[in-house]
Amino acid sequence: MLSKRDVTDLIHEKKRAAGLSWASISEGIGMSEVFVTSACLGMNSLPRDKADQLVLNLGLPQEAAVVLAEYPNKVFDQAIPTDPCIYRFYEIIGVYGQTLKELIQEKGGDGIMSAIDFDMSVEKIPYPKGDRIEIRMSGKFLSYNNW
Amino acid sequence: MLSKRDVTDLIHEKKRAAGLSWASISEGIGMSEVFVTSACLGMNSLPRDKADQLVLNLGLPQEAAVVLAEYPNKVFDQAIPTDPCIYRFYEIIGVYGQTLKELIQEKGGDGIMSAIDFDMSVEKIPYPKGDRIEIRMSGKFLSYNNW
Amino acid sequence: MLSKRDVTDLIHEKKRAAGLSWASISEGIGMSEVFVTSACLGMNSLPRDKADQLVLNLGLPQEAAVVLAEYPNKVFDQAIPTDPCIYRFYEIIGVYGQTLKELIQEKGGDGIMSAIDFDMSVEKIPYPKGDRIEIRMSGKFLSYNNW
Amino acid sequence: MLSKRDVTDLIHEKKRAAGLSWASISEGIGMSEVFVTSACLGMNSLPRDKADQLVLNLGLPQEAAVVLAEYPNKVFDQAIPTDPCIYRFYEIIGVYGQTLKELIQEKGGDGIMSAIDFDMSVEKIPYPKGDRIEIRMSGKFLSYNNW
Amino acid sequence: MLSKRDVTDLIHEKKRAAGLSWASISEGIGMSEVFVTSACLGMNSLPRDKADQLVLNLGLPQEAAVVLAEYPNKVFDQAIPTDPCIYRFYEIIGVYGQTLKELIQEKGGDGIMSAIDFDMSVEKIPYPKGDRIEIRMSGKFLSYNNW
Amino acid sequence: MLSKRDVTDLIHEKKRAAGLSWASISEGIGMSEVFVTSACLGMNSLPRDKADQLVLNLGLPQEAAVVLAEYPNKVFDQAIPTDPCIYRFYEIIGVYGQTLKELIQEKGGDGIMSAIDFDMSVEKIPYPKGDRIEIRMSGKFLSYNNW
Amino acid sequence: MLSKRDVTDLIHEKKRAAGLSWASISEGIGMSEVFVTSACLGMNSLPRDKADQLVLNLGLPQEAAVVLAEYPNKVFDQAIPTDPCIYRFYEIIGVYGQTLKELIQEKGGDGIMSAIDFDMSVEKIPYPKGDRIEIRMSGKFLSYNNW
Amino acid sequence: MLSKRDVTDLIHEKKRAAGLSWASISEGIGMSEVFVTSACLGMNSLPRDKADQLVLNLGLPQEAAVVLAEYPNKVFDQAIPTDPCIYRFYEIIGVYGQTLKELIQEKGGDGIMSAIDFDMSVEKIPYPKGDRIEIRMSGKFLSYNNW
Amino acid sequence: MLSKRDVTDLIHEKKRAAGLSWASISEGIGMSEVFVTSACLGMNSLPRDKADQLVLNLGLPQEAAVVLAEYPNKVFDQAIPTDPCIYRFYEIIGVYGQTLKELIQEKGGDGIMSAIDFDMSVEKIPYPKGDRIEIRMSGKFLSYNNW
Amino acid sequence: MLSKRDVTDLIHEKKRAAGLSWASISEGIGMSEVFVTSACLGMNSLPRDKADQLVLNLGLPQEAAVVLAEYPNKVFDQAIPTDPCIYRFYEIIGVYGQTLKELIQEKGGDGIMSAIDFDMSVEKIPYPKGDRIEIRMSGKFLSYNNW
Repeated sequence: MLSKRDVTDLIHEKKRAAGLSWASISEGIGMSEVFVTSACLGMNSLPRDKADQLVLNLGLPQEAAVVLAEYPNKVFDQAIPTDPCIYRFYEIIGVYGQTLKELIQEKGGDGIMSAIDFDMSVEKIPYPKGDRIEIRMSGKFLSYNNW
Repeated sequence: MLSKRDVTDLIHEKKRAAGLSWASISEGIGMSEVFVTSACLGMNSLPRDKADQLVLNLGLPQEAAVVLAEYPNKVFDQAIPTDPCIYRFYEIIGVYGQTLKELIQEKGGDGIMSAIDFDMSVEKIPYPKGDRIEIRMSGKFLSYNNW
Repeated sequence: MLSKRDVTDLIHEKKRAAGLSWASISEGIGMSEVFVTSACLGMNSLPRDKADQLVLNLGLPQEAAVVLAEYPNKVFDQAIPTDPCIYRFYEIIGVYGQTLKELIQEKGGDGIMSAIDFDMSVEKIPYPKGDRIEIRMSGKFLSYNNW
Repeated sequence: MLSKRDVTDLIHEKKRAAGLSWASISEGIGMSEVFVTSACLGMNSLPRDKADQLVLNLGLPQEAAVVLAEYPNKVFDQAIPTDPCIYRFYEIIGVYGQTLKELIQEKGGDGIMSAIDFDMSVEKIPYPKGDRIEIRMSGKFLSYNNW
Repeated sequence: MLSKRDVTDLIHEKKRAAGLSWASISEGIGMSEVFVTSACLGMNSLPRDKADQLVLNLGLPQEAAVVLAEYPNKVFDQAIPTDPCIYRFYEIIGVYGQTLKELIQEKGGDGIMSAIDFDMSVEKIPYPKGDRIEIRMSGKFLSYNNW
Repeated sequence: MLSKRDVTDLIHEKKRAAGLSWASISEGIGMSEVFVTSACLGMNSLPRDKADQLVLNLGLPQEAAVVLAEYPNKVFDQAIPTDPCIYRFYEIIGVYGQTLKELIQEKGGDGIMSAIDFDMSVEKIPYPKGDRIEIRMSGKFLSYNNW
Repeated sequence: MLSKRDVTDLIHEKKRAAGLSWASISEGIGMSEVFVTSACLGMNSLPRDKADQLVLNLGLPQEAAVVLAEYPNKVFDQAIPTDPCIYRFYEIIGVYGQTLKELIQEKGGDGIMSAIDFDMSVEKIPYPKGDRIEIRMSGKFLSYNNW
Repeated sequence: MLSKRDVTDLIHEKKRAAGLSWASISEGIGMSEVFVTSACLGMNSLPRDKADQLVLNLGLPQEAAVVLAEYPNKVFDQAIPTDPCIYRFYEIIGVYGQTLKELIQEKGGDGIMSAIDFDMSVEKIPYPKGDRIEIRMSGKFLSYNNW
Repeated sequence: MLSKRDVTDLIHEKKRAAGLSWASISEGIGMSEVFVTSACLGMNSLPRDKADQLVLNLGLPQEAAVVLAEYPNKVFDQAIPTDPCIYRFYEIIGVYGQTLKELIQEKGGDGIMSAIDFDMSVEKIPYPKGDRIEIRMSGKFLSYNNW
Repeated sequence: MLSKRDVTDLIHEKKRAAGLSWASISEGIGMSEVFVTSACLGMNSLPRDKADQLVLNLGLPQEAAVVLAEYPNKVFDQAIPTDPCIYRFYEIIGVYGQTLKELIQEKGGDGIMSAIDFDMSVEKIPYPKGDRIEIRMSGKFLSYNNW
């Protein structure tokens, strides 16, 4: 029985062998880079038709489509990530977390930004002083209930 | 001798008494909401002239400007934040961290997004299905050195 | 400047001195026991008019109403609670967490129960073999976005 | 020798292959969804006759019934769960734990809600503003002994 | 407003000044050493009449009786105790915990020993090869519910 | 080369297949239930002759006797146990640990109860209000040296 | 009411003011350096007559003798010490811990070296290649009981 | 390719089969028990000629000598050891760590005892009141540099 | 599919068999010891042509060059390293971390030394009083942005 | 009685008031920036004559010189530092720790770089592509003893 991890390994293998990019893989099924990559890494579930398409495009076994459409257990092992590229985001949340809370609640009242009704993009933007990475996150504002 | 924390408390007190917003405080010194809020919370240093202006605007003691311009120790106590508004960002990094790494490095090569040469904004955007919070982060792409 | 903790202490003091119950305190402002208790313990914000009424009923200083209406930092110190009455709930989540996930997602698709658009009640129900405590939690079902 | 984990894997495999739901599996042995799911996940022991019936219904090897009836070691690895669907319950206990204690003890005296003489249900309820998940927990009230 | 901790300090002070033992303090109110000591240390609540008697016997302020009868938050800071006298018990649970589980469940079926409907005693028993400490714990056997 | 864990697995397998109890296994070699169970779980070493007898009784390979007589590494992975049956004992030590210390030292002077020169028993005792589990621990009192 | 910590502070103050050494303080009451220092730091209890003598020698308040003779709570905050002088011992236990166990049990059978019936000395020994610190620990060998 | 762990397993196997002691193994290569045992457990590197001799004496494959002479990664998994025989040493460092620092620095000035230029022995000494274990540690005194 | 770890193992094996040094391996591809060693240990990515050269020099399979050029996940398991040679650097950061921050920021303003645009060397320098290890780190100074 | 922390606060206060730099403070007593700063932060002890000079230069109370010359407890609270300027060094040790070990031991044999017989410098060096921070660490090479 294939696991999410097995499917991730199969995709990595195809990706290395064929020199594919996440950009082309996600374009191939008409969805965003961030979402498709996260699903391939086992952190989101693809709609079944998209999973079928991806499996077809990459030449994976059919069972992989079932697995890609299953609801994942979102397990992350490192409470504090060690890879510098990921740690910097952890650091940003540590340094600016209280600021984000103050401003979200100043703008919307007592509540939060949803991490479920949520989307995100990543871009590299050329600048004279050096290229920049731009992350855009968008999540529904959810008000605390009172009752 | 005033500490960063003392100054944060003084600002909170003025803010509550005068019903001020972070938006107006930051506008008053011509800088962004995110940066000014983070400086008032003790997580960034204001340029001295901006600190002087802020102290003047809020009627704080002059020593507060010195403190606001000092370089902070960026200490965050909770390795895993408990407030839901902040935790959701932690969760996003946990769930999408590896995805961010894959895409940043696919676009720029082996490297990271800087958390130092960095800026961020927070907006609330009206949508038919419910308002959304939009976060935009921008950091310089830094390539790993080899030697 | 009164803090959330100061106000909690004031309420505890009044409650002990006057022999009040959370039931009567919450009834006095026409809101539920769970929500009012959590707000008095500093874990939720009361609507301002309810805060004014509570302050009037208990004879607290007027500033307490401002504090009760402020948006709290929901900080819980013990990652694993030690008090047996609270630990049992932690244990239930540990033992049944995966079960809850399986059933919520079987019924609603890939998603979660909101802890923000959320309410809860606590009752003691008499039974022949011994009284039972009944907890009812209700949260909006939120579907994961795909994009 | 089959372990609890092996049996869970066998059930998952049958469930995926035959497109079964936890609802139908539990109905097939006349017990509740929550209890049967937790037993299939290795967190509870089934009465032997129910285990035999389940093994028969799913076409599992007979040894699986012995294993399903054995008393489990209730081990949960993540002190703080990372999957959002499970974390929200952890967060609820963190935010409302002290409130639950105050109200249980106001209603019953010094004591706790049992997590052993305990049952639970999960329902999805349609609402105009969006479906809701409703959790009902019921546990015997246990008074602290004094002696 | 006196806290549990304040009352514990007052009792320690009286105990040191008057050279009292826990044995005599508990005898003075007709309850067991273990229970009374734990209540004086803030880990259990005394019945109100016993609290009144204890306060009278030790010459404590009347408010202390209210505090001794309140339901405590059972908070223990050290997840792993460092004092050797306490650590040895932690070690016994670590070494023999699985054994205790095997034997309790062999004798009673799937269930546990209650830590709520529970009592305990501590004795020093003279033996030729050296005195021994004997601990006796007794807790109600609770069966897991199935439903 | 058989490890302690291998031998524990062999015993569990024989025990399940033959429907044996720890009571009968320990009776078969004339030692107590607690000690024999803990040795079979790899947490104590059996005297060699007892190990030989146990291996004979259960029909285990002869090498198992060597292993059962070897001195174990007493490793327990969970600093805080999660199984409810074991956790309750952890909780008792957390709640009553300081009480145990106060009473042991009141009775014996500055010192501890040994966890090495130690024995323990577990019984189920019928009571009208429900059966009780009784644990008896006995350890030599050890005085702190001064020099 | 003086605490152990208060008395340690008083001794440090006297020690600094009068330029005393631990060697002279312990010699003044006829006990070893290690034991007296540990008692002054709040980690052991002095016999009452020795405590009286120490208090007299240092000119401390009489209550300090009572405190020095009380049984301490041996609390150490740092699970892993950070001071290099202390860390090196932690490292030695980490590196050689299994070796110590193998050799103690090879020499004495299944058992341990007592940390209660225990004494220790520290010496600086001149050597041509540089002075050495010599630590000597001596503890009673305790055999595990079987029963 | 043999690892340090593989070689440790080979030595354990030979030791059990031939009934060897660490005393005889170390005597066989003319080095101390503590050092040879620690090297066999993978925590030190043997000089190559000693490794060759040990491999010859025990009849191990020649590659094992290469491995025994390689520089180990000194990894210890348990920050706080659980085996009682090892924990007691951890406890001694916790209880006496500050005392060791005070005395080492009183005797030698600001500095530490080296754990690198270090040796240790373990002896069992017969005493009328019961055998004692004696540990002797010797490490070079290292002064902190100032510059 | 070869992983980074597999390639590290292959290199270790060649290195042991042929008696190679990191110095010669890095010289063979014309890059520094520190960088090449870290890449061989899976902590940096080699430029593809350098990877090809290294694979050729050591006689590794061609796929190893692809792997050596891939961007690594920089995962380090031990938050606090236990090997003394590595721990000493951790200790230096613990003891001198605040000092480094004070001096870097005194010299450059509010900012940091980059760990990405970074290089390092290790040398052994002979000195009369004993050889010394010299580490030189060089990283770009990055100023905090304000906006 | 002044503590190390009190003296650090006094120095910070003088430094802020008089606009002093660590460079001038250390130059004033003829010692290096790194060492003097670390001593002022309570992490090293100054020779008494240097402490006297520093106290004189800054106009501190005479007792401060005694404190600056006392041997510090090198306590660092954050096992993983959060300030980005300090974290980057932690990250470097995490990423390059094994590399440092490999190279130090390749050059010197089985041993370590001392963190006690140790010195360090920090420089800012102008470069065309942006200023760089250069750290130089030098510690005595210490060989592991064998015996």
